[in-house]
Amino acid sequence: MKTIINPEKSTWPALCQRPQMQLEFLEGAVKNILSRVKTSGDEALREITFQFDKVKLTDLRVSEKEVQDAIGEVSFELKDAIRAAAVNIGKFHHAQKRTTEKIETTPGVFCWRKAVPIQKVGIYIPGGSAPLFSTVLMLGIPASIAGCVEIVLCSPPDATGKINSAILFAANLVGIKKIFKVGGAQAIAAMAYGTESIPAVDKIFGPGNQYVTKAKQMVNLEGTAIDMPAGPSEVLVLADEKANPSFIAADLLSQAEHGADSQVMLVTSSEEVVKKVTSQIEVQLEKLPRKEIAKEALQNSRAVILKNPHAIDFVNHYAPEHLIINTEDCDQLAEQIVNAGSIFLGPYSPESAGDYASGTNHTLPTNGFAKSYGGVSLESFLKYITLQKISREGIAQLGPVIETMAEAEQLKAHAEAVRVRTRG
Amino acid sequence: MKTIINPEKSTWPALCQRPQMQLEFLEGAVKNILSRVKTSGDEALREITFQFDKVKLTDLRVSEKEVQDAIGEVSFELKDAIRAAAVNIGKFHHAQKRTTEKIETTPGVFCWRKAVPIQKVGIYIPGGSAPLFSTVLMLGIPASIAGCVEIVLCSPPDATGKINSAILFAANLVGIKKIFKVGGAQAIAAMAYGTESIPAVDKIFGPGNQYVTKAKQMVNLEGTAIDMPAGPSEVLVLADEKANPSFIAADLLSQAEHGADSQVMLVTSSEEVVKKVTSQIEVQLEKLPRKEIAKEALQNSRAVILKNPHAIDFVNHYAPEHLIINTEDCDQLAEQIVNAGSIFLGPYSPESAGDYASGTNHTLPTNGFAKSYGGVSLESFLKYITLQKISREGIAQLGPVIETMAEAEQLKAHAEAVRVRTRG
Repeated sequence: MKTIINPEKSTWPALCQRPQMQLEFLEGAVKNILSRVKTSGDEALREITFQFDKVKLTDLRVSEKEVQDAIGEVSFELKDAIRAAAVNIGKFHHAQKRTTEKIETTPGVFCWRKAVPIQKVGIYIPGGSAPLFSTVLMLGIPASIAGCVEIVLCSPPDATGKINSAILFAANLVGIKKIFKVGGAQAIAAMAYGTESIPAVDKIFGPGNQYVTKAKQMVNLEGTAIDMPAGPSEVLVLADEKANPSFIAADLLSQAEHGADSQVMLVTSSEEVVKKVTSQIEVQLEKLPRKEIAKEALQNSRAVILKNPHAIDFVNHYAPEHLIINTEDCDQLAEQIVNAGSIFLGPYSPESAGDYASGTNHTLPTNGFAKSYGGVSLESFLKYITLQKISREGIAQLGPVIETMAEAEQLKAHAEAVRVRTRG
Repeated sequence: MKTIINPEKSTWPALCQRPQMQLEFLEGAVKNILSRVKTSGDEALREITFQFDKVKLTDLRVSEKEVQDAIGEVSFELKDAIRAAAVNIGKFHHAQKRTTEKIETTPGVFCWRKAVPIQKVGIYIPGGSAPLFSTVLMLGIPASIAGCVEIVLCSPPDATGKINSAILFAANLVGIKKIFKVGGAQAIAAMAYGTESIPAVDKIFGPGNQYVTKAKQMVNLEGTAIDMPAGPSEVLVLADEKANPSFIAADLLSQAEHGADSQVMLVTSSEEVVKKVTSQIEVQLEKLPRKEIAKEALQNSRAVILKNPHAIDFVNHYAPEHLIINTEDCDQLAEQIVNAGSIFLGPYSPESAGDYASGTNHTLPTNGFAKSYGGVSLESFLKYITLQKISREGIAQLGPVIETMAEAEQLKAHAEAVRVRTRG
């Protein structure tokens, strides 16, 4: 972790640079996969799965028996933990429901909005070393609360043709019935276009490697909505002298272990804090199974010494996915934060609480996207339809306004649509 | 308008096809414009403006004097109409504000969300024959209610180097101070990258031609958010035998006059209605200055004869940007609509009311995107940041859940970030 003392504002853009994802070179390979799936459906999925996942599948869909077997394999302790997390995630996302209010903007002119679930949604869950059953909860629970009619989940099979049992347990818990053994860009293609066995969806959610990210970008340009642009995960810890260095070190490491391309940042007014945290990182790092990954991530990482209000300015400039404010005045500082995905306040709010179980969503904007995007929420699975109902008196009153504006925009038929109703 | 009687469901996808936008061939030209603006800033903007808009500009920014002059040029009648529309749009979007609610998901674990304005937003207003001052209201008013700190507006200058006075009046009315004379892909580039005079923004809104659309797609892939994917405008009218054919014809024509690529659809159970509407269209068309455009649009348009529930199924399949339900049972039918941008209920709710003045937003999802996107709303200018504050007792209670899940996902440092806080 490189320490930078009182950096000039002109150097902030460089300091806030994330490890870059280069995806353009994947375009040809991903385009080829998309077009194979579009043309040959399930047959292409089986071929590509054999090619990349080294397994021959007959049925792409996970059977009810496989789900039941998986449930039997998950430990009671893990089941209870997943259930407890699901309750909290459910409470937090349920509270995001809102009621419809009709507004009479002009006498006789009533306008309102209704929230309608996106009818068909797809959830992608990566395979690989870590089975991300927590992401099944984070996407499946709001989809289910929103009332999405069709929820499809795709995840790559392992070498024996199975999906991790905890993923299947979590999917079953949140009521996902259509689970398919397909991963990578081919899974994104299947959910965007539909195949014989996998239904096409209106919006695709979920993390993935660079092939998945590129495929999501490409189907998005063709019209399938996606949750948000993706980038490597990151945390910024804003700490004062009172903060416990071992807490800070643990929080930085919990982000660093995600991947070699993760970025962790420490912002503090005190060089002393940086020294103590650095030595705590060394101690704690040794005990971690993923220490090589964490070490690499620490190469991309920075400690920045800044006093307020510059420290807060810097945080807003960086726009972290996760922001831990471990200071005595954390509540006041949080008021000043305008760009962040999720904020963790005080000494006892580690990022891992939000990653798993406090109730907030862990699908958050990375790479500075927190300037313009919020994380996944209930609204991500809904869309608002506006409605209006105007009475005869209402159009008589509002009509002249519409006519004048339409004529000035040289759209005469727009004015006529009013006149035909009011002239009689 | 082609009439199709009781089409089989298998033919619906073809019937719901929109006129296709081909944008790939623009990629080279737009990429070139983007890169010139990125490299040479204002100088590139002046050159490109001279090339396309045939006008040499010194100052790209509209001066305060130009704004005041423009205000003097707009008729009192139009000013009053714009003000009346602004009041309604303000009321409807103000009502979209919501309060923060803290949720205690587990004793000692508090989670909530705060709505924060996207700090810097850009609004693009096209030039050309119709001066779209109504779009200035539709984007500027929610931006202002949201509290966006910097609102930038770009619109191309005419041959005398000016922006239409009604656009400047509307911009001034909603409090937009930074107005620039630049259009096309170069305006999108300027707002995405920033130049000496035009600030870079976090999100770009607004309609435009195919160059603008392509440029928005391209800067979106590079990280600037955009309002939504664009396509030609469209309306679907769902009518019964009681509906006045001249109202239906006027509504279809008010959409058809937008552009030759607009699409209008009529869905009804009665062939009689189609006949009457068709002859009304012929009568009304003759009086329209844009009748050639409307005639072309009618070529892309269809009358579909279907009874309920198939008619409603078809509407949801089509997912219209604008849906007019001109039937006696419009309220009940509206309950069954799950895919639409904005719905207009009953005989006295023409689309043009929502286009200008009733209060709802007219920036809506086209091209079937209503399946997954809602229109522009207050939320389009906000993002939600989640927050959590956990007490010592809270982390003691929730800690074991987090640890169990983190260990099962093989993310030990995530578990350690809890243990370091609870073991002491």
